[in-house]
Amino acid sequence: MSKSKPSLPRGTRDFGPTISAKRSYIIEKIKKNFIKYGFSQLETPAMENLSTLTGKYGDEGDQLLYKILNSGDYLSKATEDDYKEGSKHLSSKISEKGLRYDLTVPFARFVVMNQNEIPFPFKRYQIQPVWRADRPQKGRYREFYQCDADIVGSKGIWNEVELTLLFHDVFNDLALEDYIVKINHREILFLLADYVGLKEKAIPFTAEIDKLDKIGREKVVDNVLALGGDSSKIDEVMDLIILKDRDQLLNKVKSIDDSNTGVIELLGFFERLNQFKERNLRVELDLSLARGLSYYTGMIYEVKPTSVRMGSICGGGRYDNLTGIFGLDGVSGIGISFGLDRIYDVMDELNLFPEKITQQIEILILHFNEENLRHGQSIVMQLRAAGIKADLYPESVKIQKQFTYADKIRTPYALIIGDNEMSSGEYMIKNMQSGEQKPMSIDKIIQLFKG
Amino acid sequence: MSKSKPSLPRGTRDFGPTISAKRSYIIEKIKKNFIKYGFSQLETPAMENLSTLTGKYGDEGDQLLYKILNSGDYLSKATEDDYKEGSKHLSSKISEKGLRYDLTVPFARFVVMNQNEIPFPFKRYQIQPVWRADRPQKGRYREFYQCDADIVGSKGIWNEVELTLLFHDVFNDLALEDYIVKINHREILFLLADYVGLKEKAIPFTAEIDKLDKIGREKVVDNVLALGGDSSKIDEVMDLIILKDRDQLLNKVKSIDDSNTGVIELLGFFERLNQFKERNLRVELDLSLARGLSYYTGMIYEVKPTSVRMGSICGGGRYDNLTGIFGLDGVSGIGISFGLDRIYDVMDELNLFPEKITQQIEILILHFNEENLRHGQSIVMQLRAAGIKADLYPESVKIQKQFTYADKIRTPYALIIGDNEMSSGEYMIKNMQSGEQKPMSIDKIIQLFKG
Repeated sequence: MSKSKPSLPRGTRDFGPTISAKRSYIIEKIKKNFIKYGFSQLETPAMENLSTLTGKYGDEGDQLLYKILNSGDYLSKATEDDYKEGSKHLSSKISEKGLRYDLTVPFARFVVMNQNEIPFPFKRYQIQPVWRADRPQKGRYREFYQCDADIVGSKGIWNEVELTLLFHDVFNDLALEDYIVKINHREILFLLADYVGLKEKAIPFTAEIDKLDKIGREKVVDNVLALGGDSSKIDEVMDLIILKDRDQLLNKVKSIDDSNTGVIELLGFFERLNQFKERNLRVELDLSLARGLSYYTGMIYEVKPTSVRMGSICGGGRYDNLTGIFGLDGVSGIGISFGLDRIYDVMDELNLFPEKITQQIEILILHFNEENLRHGQSIVMQLRAAGIKADLYPESVKIQKQFTYADKIRTPYALIIGDNEMSSGEYMIKNMQSGEQKPMSIDKIIQLFKG
Repeated sequence: MSKSKPSLPRGTRDFGPTISAKRSYIIEKIKKNFIKYGFSQLETPAMENLSTLTGKYGDEGDQLLYKILNSGDYLSKATEDDYKEGSKHLSSKISEKGLRYDLTVPFARFVVMNQNEIPFPFKRYQIQPVWRADRPQKGRYREFYQCDADIVGSKGIWNEVELTLLFHDVFNDLALEDYIVKINHREILFLLADYVGLKEKAIPFTAEIDKLDKIGREKVVDNVLALGGDSSKIDEVMDLIILKDRDQLLNKVKSIDDSNTGVIELLGFFERLNQFKERNLRVELDLSLARGLSYYTGMIYEVKPTSVRMGSICGGGRYDNLTGIFGLDGVSGIGISFGLDRIYDVMDELNLFPEKITQQIEILILHFNEENLRHGQSIVMQLRAAGIKADLYPESVKIQKQFTYADKIRTPYALIIGDNEMSSGEYMIKNMQSGEQKPMSIDKIIQLFKG
């Protein structure tokens, strides 16, 4: 039995009481809205067959999969030659399962396996951890939660609108106002690539455009020229991309190609969004936005905080072919993902967590002797029955020790039971912050919390 | 890219909408009560260092740990000799992390790592999945949830009482009445072992006693005699164990040794429990109960369903030394664990899940044309704003297709928008079960759900 000082694997975290309470607060608001919008929950196992995971995230993704050693005498299926061929080859002989890398591939697997029972459109949400053997750094962990909602089997533009409203409702519930939902459409990016003569290099072109914020216009232009872009068109396209006026922008794109799906869908999208203008939706068209272009095929989303320097806190988009990787074509859909860790960081920085949620308890009962402790046992149960987070110091020890504990767990109130309190039925209630105290009956105490 | 039909690893499960909703329902009731009783949440990572896990669950447990292959060129730390020594030896060279096997060892690790910041008594709850490479069978899975609550750093008997009340409150909230909390005390079992002359064989003795239900008195007596038990005492002890009257039973044990900690604590326990007799607590002393005896040192609990044939649905007990495995002695405590899968099975069998929780949505909005769909977009958002799980069929398709979908997702109500409805502001509401329909205003519809 090892008695060495225990530690955590690198890139993983414990969440103690305060952090857990704050994380739960965010998750519950997200979940509540997912449910309100008609999404139902899916949970998939942490372990998937490697045949399900491998090849779905590119070569780099394959490297980052956590592989699980087969149980028992795992070498029995391997030969010395397998060993000599090295790690990559051997692992196919000694490992059949891996940890889930995201929630999308397990979702696709679920849809394929249950395609005959699922009613389409199918709206599912999934809030679970994922694992990646990435190099840990500030803000990047090897275990982290994803909070995804997807609608599959429907192409109507209302879905794009609905998910935008969902962002809004979640952030509204979190009292997080400093954000902007950025929107773009892959077909517009491809049109622009075509326009500058880079039809065959649309992905590298958009990857350059995506850097606009970071490296500036001049460098982007240089890079696009280096890709072979048409120098007579590039400035026109850059002017367009940085246009702030949405209508002007869409009209210009339309003037390049008025049958472009991206323009048509975005016009429909913004027109529908306009029905909800009294909600002050924070939505912005940003042609430089280019995320997940190998996966998304239509509109793309990214949510960014506006007053805190940080990358995107949510993302998403429409895809044509969720389940093609498993041989089932034609399942299109749209999905979004909330980045729990980053939302947490933004809310923490902006002080948006209500104080109450990190209160482990609302009132702690203290006592002077065994008799008072006994009495406290029924008091604490009365308070809990009234829905109050109440606790009782569980042993008859010196009151000073109990007060020290009350301070440590930062209870806002203490209820003190002495012999007088027992006979009068009026208990001393101490506000632990102000130090004020006064006698109160149980009914009054319940009112104090519930009133 | 593999296009073969995807599958799930053996012993793991997907939880689709209905099962997830039911599981969430149980978890939320448990969590709510944990919080009400002053427990705060801990979350630990799925992966732990193998040095943390190994040797904590016995040899059999070590075999059941899921080990994770080191990332990258994992063979670089192994030699051909390591390979030749076989699976067990090689794994120490190519795997440093494993999946958590239970929630107790990670909790102990957390306490040791944070011993200076934690206020004791420390009440933590933890609801997370664990993984065991066990042979899958009916009711036994390789990934399953544990729902644990522990109080560490307090020896007061009130803790034992409190956890009993917590069982009661959780099952009360779940409307699950058919259960019994069985109680025993390790010190009493040891006293009885001593009494029949098996002081040094107390663990095997109690393991035999534990079989009473299954194999019957006669066989238990034979087995105890085979262990070397004193034949003149064994019948007396068996008579005692099957005594149904609690006071008589405790008095008899007391007559054997009136300084036995077990008797003293149980007397104190039942006396305190008596304060809450109006709650009809279902608690029974059962001297044949013997669980986790290598770990528990005081009172032990087991909760069993009474009308469904099944093993225990909860367990727990007091332990002396949570963190000794990590070199920190003297941290005693008491903990209980709710078995989510089994509680689920009992509730399903007894039909205790409220119908409402598995309703994905409460009302689905259908429409006849694009114009009606547009109108539905603001209606659905009004209903959601009122806290109703409302959804809108997201595309303008034939109404019959929409009704088929409404049936499939089993929405209790449908709201049908036609041109007349749009102009009158009275929408046709159809009760999908009875088929009844009548026109209603939005306010009336909201009342229908909230009233």
